[in-house]
Amino acid sequence: MKRGRGPIALLTDFGTRDWYVAAMKGVMLTRAPGIQLVDITHEVPAHDVPAGAFILAGAAPWFPPGTVFAAVVDPGVGSRRAVIAAQADGRYFVGPDNGLLGVCLGCSPRRRIVRVADPRDWLTPVSRTFHGRDVIAPVAAHLARGGSLRRLGPSLRQITPLPLPAVHRRGRRWRGEVVHLDAFGNLITNLPAPQAPEGGHPVRWTLRYRRRDIPVVSSYAAGRPRQLVALVGSLGFIELAVSQASAARALLAKRGEAVELVREG
Amino acid sequence: MKRGRGPIALLTDFGTRDWYVAAMKGVMLTRAPGIQLVDITHEVPAHDVPAGAFILAGAAPWFPPGTVFAAVVDPGVGSRRAVIAAQADGRYFVGPDNGLLGVCLGCSPRRRIVRVADPRDWLTPVSRTFHGRDVIAPVAAHLARGGSLRRLGPSLRQITPLPLPAVHRRGRRWRGEVVHLDAFGNLITNLPAPQAPEGGHPVRWTLRYRRRDIPVVSSYAAGRPRQLVALVGSLGFIELAVSQASAARALLAKRGEAVELVREG
Amino acid sequence: MKRGRGPIALLTDFGTRDWYVAAMKGVMLTRAPGIQLVDITHEVPAHDVPAGAFILAGAAPWFPPGTVFAAVVDPGVGSRRAVIAAQADGRYFVGPDNGLLGVCLGCSPRRRIVRVADPRDWLTPVSRTFHGRDVIAPVAAHLARGGSLRRLGPSLRQITPLPLPAVHRRGRRWRGEVVHLDAFGNLITNLPAPQAPEGGHPVRWTLRYRRRDIPVVSSYAAGRPRQLVALVGSLGFIELAVSQASAARALLAKRGEAVELVREG
Repeated sequence: MKRGRGPIALLTDFGTRDWYVAAMKGVMLTRAPGIQLVDITHEVPAHDVPAGAFILAGAAPWFPPGTVFAAVVDPGVGSRRAVIAAQADGRYFVGPDNGLLGVCLGCSPRRRIVRVADPRDWLTPVSRTFHGRDVIAPVAAHLARGGSLRRLGPSLRQITPLPLPAVHRRGRRWRGEVVHLDAFGNLITNLPAPQAPEGGHPVRWTLRYRRRDIPVVSSYAAGRPRQLVALVGSLGFIELAVSQASAARALLAKRGEAVELVREG
Repeated sequence: MKRGRGPIALLTDFGTRDWYVAAMKGVMLTRAPGIQLVDITHEVPAHDVPAGAFILAGAAPWFPPGTVFAAVVDPGVGSRRAVIAAQADGRYFVGPDNGLLGVCLGCSPRRRIVRVADPRDWLTPVSRTFHGRDVIAPVAAHLARGGSLRRLGPSLRQITPLPLPAVHRRGRRWRGEVVHLDAFGNLITNLPAPQAPEGGHPVRWTLRYRRRDIPVVSSYAAGRPRQLVALVGSLGFIELAVSQASAARALLAKRGEAVELVREG
Repeated sequence: MKRGRGPIALLTDFGTRDWYVAAMKGVMLTRAPGIQLVDITHEVPAHDVPAGAFILAGAAPWFPPGTVFAAVVDPGVGSRRAVIAAQADGRYFVGPDNGLLGVCLGCSPRRRIVRVADPRDWLTPVSRTFHGRDVIAPVAAHLARGGSLRRLGPSLRQITPLPLPAVHRRGRRWRGEVVHLDAFGNLITNLPAPQAPEGGHPVRWTLRYRRRDIPVVSSYAAGRPRQLVALVGSLGFIELAVSQASAARALLAKRGEAVELVREG
């Protein structure tokens, strides 16, 4: 059966000040006229593959089946790193094989991945500095038109991974770290939502950060203005937040800082 | 008669660095495949409901009937504030009931407003921190598909208002204030375009700001480079501007500063 | 034969914090319902016509025939500068006649240009400060719907040019300058890709910048991290770049700085 058409969702570190993203879109519209284009973000910090992977993984599950994600955070462009294309959970992904797609593809059991090798779709000549326009954009347009994944190149079993840092448990303590600072200045950790023990009485949880014990509350509004609170964010991970302000700015927080979730009483 | 489809125009304070806006768009495209999406802005200062209300009111009149505006500047998310949906002048609005829609809906005589209460459209479970994605996006998609407003919940007579500050008149003087600093660094006031008195000779107007008397001119180009001028902007309000530069930056201007319009001679 | 519809690609210096771009889009969607809209950028530095011209020229060739480019960097709005519309290489352009379209239209042999004079499409009244919304947006919608170029106004032979600065050759030396700092912090010059001399042995090229001799290499990845390299960028011009970092920031580079390409040995 013919798949529906698009949309194509774009994520890059190109910024929107210059014409790079527009060139990718122009190529997509040339190859797949009228295809719907959606920006995830173009403000991934330059060359920051982990940030790009995390943002892409946050966005992808909310898009409909058939969406094609074209992702370009690609410090190795012009070197021998591969471009890959994949299908997972009914969605399609195209990007450099440098970990950028690793979070999205990491845990899907029904994924199919190919190394993009068939130059039929590519612009000619392929520039050395802009595979986003010359390879990834036309390949994404091919997939968005309903084109075959298998035709793009040979199957891959392994891709370059980008795992989240591991969470270490010791008894009632789960040790993780800040993996992302979001647009509101919330500190997103790699600690998943705590599970209450079976059949037990209500449990309180505390997040330990820089020697402070921060209660885990149920919503932003539960905190007093300017109070630092911890809560389960919409990605399903524990976040540190300051009600009505930027925790990241107030605390000069950094990615990689240690946090510890503690089950009380 | 069946209404046309969309577009949906989005306004938030989420920024575009992260995946929040993309998640809303993904939900909209899942619920209303192929619906057209237009960004008004996602750079409303975080939690600044008045700025959001002002920008939304600036944009909305230029869109065609049938447009659905999905607006999220929502410091109270997770508290008991309601989500509302409305129709006014053939356009649709969805957002938190915190004043954000107050300027748009404030003065329309033919408005219909409901409290969004029917959870059929919502994502399940509804998160505590992201009603933009879980409630507002699917409700906007419902309306953009031509779905019923009434079905969403009970009618409301009153919503939380966001009036512009009042203008005080004394004789030939109208006292107002700076209500918005726009993207060009112009200072937008709450003073409406001055009306020439009936049948009279030509009238000069002056804007008083920080003890300076600034002539009201007819266009940006009427000012010499770097000169501070006052003129009627495209919203119909008096603005302070510096030709070819940012008045806000040059003057370190702030929202809320007093201005006074004076009819001369 | 009827042309296809759109898309309309927008370039402005309005930023995306405020409702200006949205108002233009609303007008376009009112006049050409369902037309596809693509943002090139709205972050052209305020009133910087050369930067806008350069970015537009970078983006335009990648878009399909029939695309309408609506460009607004317009410090003279409200003065007597004309608005022009043009066709070149199957694409359409609308903008102020201040050089902004000069790079795109400068060298096309099959261009047709008109002065926009017929007010039928315009909003009424036309404001003095926002021709982007009142003139350029509805004219772009007219063209995107397949409307006639000729109908818009009288033909023009000449438009206000925006030539790139000239390159001066002396023997083996080509002297140019930095004409643009791009989103990655690369320094884009007006020096075209060097041509190897006929039938000769391999040739090395060096770029001289601030008394440093920088080898011209074949890709970003050819440089060691943090090394300053010169290479032919995707626009076909010599660029200065620092692998995995911003050359512009590292060097506090400025537009207009002199560069010299030297053919070695």
